[in-house]
Order: sequence, then C-alpha cells, then structure tokens
Amino acid sequence: MSELRKDLVRNSWVIIATDQALGVEEFPMRKHRVSVPGHNHICPFCEGNEGMTTLELAAYRREGSPANGPGWTVRAIPNKYSPFRLQGDFVFEQYGIYHSNKGLGQHEVIVETPRHGVEFHQLSLAQLEAVLTMFQERYQFLSADRRIKYIQIYKNRGLFAGASIEHSHSQILALPMIPPHIEEIGAYYQNHGRCVLCDILEQEIAFQNRVIYSSASFVLLCPYASRYPYEVWLIPRLHKEHFSYINKSNIKAMAGIVKGILNAMLMLLDDPSYNLILNSAPLHTTKDGFHWYLEIYPRLMIPNGMEITCGYCINPVSPQLAAESLRSNFQHFEEFFAGSI
Amino acid sequence: MSELRKDLVRNSWVIIATDQALGVEEFPMRKHRVSVPGHNHICPFCEGNEGMTTLELAAYRREGSPANGPGWTVRAIPNKYSPFRLQGDFVFEQYGIYHSNKGLGQHEVIVETPRHGVEFHQLSLAQLEAVLTMFQERYQFLSADRRIKYIQIYKNRGLFAGASIEHSHSQILALPMIPPHIEEIGAYYQNHGRCVLCDILEQEIAFQNRVIYSSASFVLLCPYASRYPYEVWLIPRLHKEHFSYINKSNIKAMAGIVKGILNAMLMLLDDPSYNLILNSAPLHTTKDGFHWYLEIYPRLMIPNGMEITCGYCINPVSPQLAAESLRSNFQHFEEFFAGSI
Repeated sequence: MSELRKDLVRNSWVIIATDQALGVEEFPMRKHRVSVPGHNHICPFCEGNEGMTTLELAAYRREGSPANGPGWTVRAIPNKYSPFRLQGDFVFEQYGIYHSNKGLGQHEVIVETPRHGVEFHQLSLAQLEAVLTMFQERYQFLSADRRIKYIQIYKNRGLFAGASIEHSHSQILALPMIPPHIEEIGAYYQNHGRCVLCDILEQEIAFQNRVIYSSASFVLLCPYASRYPYEVWLIPRLHKEHFSYINKSNIKAMAGIVKGILNAMLMLLDDPSYNLILNSAPLHTTKDGFHWYLEIYPRLMIPNGMEITCGYCINPVSPQLAAESLRSNFQHFEEFFAGSI
Repeated sequence: MSELRKDLVRNSWVIIATDQALGVEEFPMRKHRVSVPGHNHICPFCEGNEGMTTLELAAYRREGSPANGPGWTVRAIPNKYSPFRLQGDFVFEQYGIYHSNKGLGQHEVIVETPRHGVEFHQLSLAQLEAVLTMFQERYQFLSADRRIKYIQIYKNRGLFAGASIEHSHSQILALPMIPPHIEEIGAYYQNHGRCVLCDILEQEIAFQNRVIYSSASFVLLCPYASRYPYEVWLIPRLHKEHFSYINKSNIKAMAGIVKGILNAMLMLLDDPSYNLILNSAPLHTTKDGFHWYLEIYPRLMIPNGMEITCGYCINPVSPQLAAESLRSNFQHFEEFFAGSI
C-alpha cells in the first residue's frame, strides 16, 4: 500500500510506499561507472593540470608549493561556466514584463582530491576532514558578503546525479536569493514557534524505527516523508543555523559518519549515482528557526512529468525498511564512525 | 554568457544561457530506444491483454465490442499501483508531528493506442484527436467530484522522462490539493490583477523571436525562462481556465500542432525522451487568473543536486535559439497543422 505523507520541511507532499514496492535490483538507473585511478591528462581537476582551470580561490598545499601548481590536497576554484559573479548589486534588467540579472553570486568547485578515479567515499578520513574544513572556510568567506542571501553546498556523483565531470568534486553556490525549501523551514517556525529539524529529531529519537545511527552529536536517519528511495539525513543534535559553526571534533565525527553511510549505501544499492546536499540558514536575516543538516539522495529513478511539475515525488521504498537495510550495512563500516562523538 | 531569469509562472529562477552553450549532440542522455511495432504478449496495454489491467473506466470501442476486451482505440484504466482512491475525505492520520492520508484522489492511465511500439507522435491525426477527447472526457468526469482540487494530465515518454512502461500512454492525476506551480499562477493574478499566461502571450506575439508558430487559436513558443533546453509551450489565445472547455475544432487544431512539434523536436534532438504536461485551473475555487496550457519538455539532462533541492534549473540553450531551430524543423511537418485554426 501507499500513502500521501506531508513533507514538513518542504511543506509539500510525497507519495510513499508503506512497504517495499521495488527491490534494490529493480531500479531503472545504471550502475555508476568508475575509471581506473591515476592521472588523466585531459582532466582539469587532476594535479598537474591546474593551468586548465580558473585561478584558485583557496587550497590546502604542501608548504612552499605555489598557488595554481601541484602540491595541493583540496582546491577551491570558480566554476568556469557559471553565470555568477560577485559584482554589482542584485538589480534587474527589464524586458517588457520579464526581468533578468546578469548573475550576482558565486559558483565554486571544491576539488576533493588531486587523484583521478579516487572517489569521495574512498578518501581517507583525514582527507574527508580536509574537504569539510574547506567547505567551512569557503562558507565563512562567502557569508561575509552582505549581498549573498544563501549558500548551497552540494555534490553530484555520477551521471544520474547530474555530474558532468568525473573527478571527485563538490560545488558551492552563493546566491542572491533564498531558495524555496529554506523559506519553508522559516515558515514552519513562524507557524509553530519551533524548529522543524529539532521537532523531527525529537520524534525520530523517540520512535527509533527510522534511525540508522546516533551519537552524542549527530543523528543519521531516513526521513518520514523521504522524497527518494533510501534518502538519508544527517542532523546535528545541537540547534545551529550555519554549517560553518561546526567545530573540529564534529568535523571529524561527521567525516566518519558520512564515509560510513556512503559505503553502506553504495554496497546496498550496487554503486548508484548520488547527491549530497548541505542545507543551512539564510544569511543576514533576523528570521529564526533554521538548523543546518545534510541530505544524501541515491539517484535510482528519473523524475517523471508529475514530479518535475508538481514537485510531489513518488517513493517506492518505505523509509522504515530503507533504514533497516542501511543500518545493517552501516555496521560493516564501524571503523569510520566508532570514534564519533 | 548566462543570466538569471525570473520565471513568472512558477515564481522561481532559471539560470539560462544567452547563447547555445551545448550543441544538440552534446547532451548526456541516450536516444530513446523504440521497439518494433506489433503485439507484445506481456504488455498489459496491448489489445487482447485487457485482462492484465484493472477494469476500464472508459474506452472508445468498435460498436458491439464488450468492455475489457479487444476492439478499442483509446482506453482509460486506473493505475494499478496508485495510492489514490476516490473514497472518504481528505483527512489526516496523525503520527506525532507527522501526518499522512491514505490517498484521496484518482490516478488513471490513458492507453493511447492498442498497438505496441507505435509512438504518440506516429499516431494518425484522428487517433490523436481521440486521445485529446478522452483527456477532456475524463477531466470533465473527475472535476465533478468536489473533493478533487486539481487535475494534472501528463505523459512520460522514454526512460529519461520517467516512463516505466513502453506502450504509448498518458496519465491523469486527480489530486485533493493544489500543486505549488498552480498556486503561483493564482498568486501572480492576485499581485498584478492580470493573467500571467495572457501577459506572456501579448509580449511574445509582439516580440516574435521565441514564437515557433501561431494560428488564430494557439501560440507555440519557447518560454523566456525555459527551465529545460528546447522547452515548448502551447498556449490557447482565448483565456479559458480548464482544458475541458476546448471545443472540437480546437482539439483538431491542437492534435495537428502537437504532432508537428513533437516530430520536429524528435528530428532535431535525435529522438529524446520527453514529457507532456497539461496545466489547468484549480477546481471548485473562486480564485481567478488561471489559463490552461501545455508544456513539452525534452529530457536531455538529469536534474543535479542544486536543481532537485532549490528548483533553480540550469538551461544551457537560449530559448530564442531553441525557437529558431524548432521553427525551421516544424515547417517540415506542415501537413499536420496547415488546416489549424
């Protein structure tokens, strides 16, 4: 059987199976194809090919190695094809009833490793910590610009997650407007006087049936109104608006949990494409009720006409059953998160 | 160069190329694979296999042929796997802070031809008129139910449009709530005192550069803030709320234009997957400013993490250039729409 579930965070609806209507091997999307690790002479993100990219914004480098050359572990660069520039104000050019903006904002790429064909879930814990630390550093830098209203950090892994470049990387989009899913989190607070993520945490911890793992600092769960099969959220227990407020020991814990759940998910679902999405609060606002969290979506199905129009997703796998399967696989990767706090 | 364009209909943003950043042969999605026409003994939508489906709701049949047997040209059946039923009221089951509904509504499938492997754009004009007439008939029937707030008619063609069954069909979803994209059309009217589709028609007819074709009754265009490359809208000139108000001669005209533009699009883009989406007004409302129209989306790219989270699409092809290419291809199929009014 299926039911309509209210998505409290997005103020939308999900059509969700209360059982498992589709087995893990029945999804239409192909397995993610992985290259052999090693240098790729045409890849702009490979070490040694720094000249193919725009000038770097930040990098973690071997002492003494010059900017825009080899010797780095994580590298932040502007997206070459982005319309966004940190120039001028958010003003509109009118064109009759229409209006446009040349693209105030910034679109950055975080290259997560100098090595081609080494994937995000295969990075060492120290390297994952460095990637998360770079997210934090860039978030802090961009959020100082008062024209920027929201920073979306996300990762597309594989063709079916919308990736166009194979070399492991994430993206940071600094926007001059607040996206609708974040506005809805604010609207929940205005309507209920409570943070929707704190409310969800409280209920999920009480019920436990959708929790994959919990530590002193984080809860990893499949949300009640999961839009996608095997969707996972990592929510920090402490109500904090911005990802950039995370401390060093929680970055370490987060790296372990993310590495553990990605390996569990890739094993369970036979190496699918996936997205990571890091949601935070709007910037420079007096509004309250925001709480940063990480979403992970394996991309097993292509959105159909109804989904891209109405935004109402159809999810053929019960989040409770998804959590059970992920939980038992997650335990195999205990070494990554055993030290988590 | 790219720019941010305001999507007036959805009250959202699109990041759009002002030129053609991606050529027609550079999109990541595979060509749609087509079966050989003919009977498929495991396909529930093939003539002779009516016993594999739920009982039919309506059908256009050879005189004397009994329901749920062969002898039909177009057939409407309930979606077997749908959570929606026209039973009871739209009430919530509470589960702590969460709520769900067993699925008040109806999800129907319109089988567009008894023959497997014959595609929508290959149907005769008479058969296409019969399909549109069935949409109208089912729309009229479902809109009489006062619990239904909105009817979404849509078609998924091909794997990359979210289709799971190959045999040519469309879907009708009668919903107990009004989807957000339709609410936004109402909001535009409340804010401006004008219909957004009428405003768009007026401007596009004046500028002409995104118009593919116009007749006395319809305008076919690539919208200013196209969310997808080669997105096309068919807008009736007359401000009418519901698709079901269409008359017989306009059904005939619409069949010709739809057949023409689909053939032009499939030729230009090498047979991609696509969605057809028929937007109408909410039902049983006193709100004003709605205007039915048809959207056609070739599915050339997979939505990435930013798109599925924020809903801000990235479109690498300028709508003006898309309109130019589609316009010259559309002229090859003049026989389908030459008699259009």
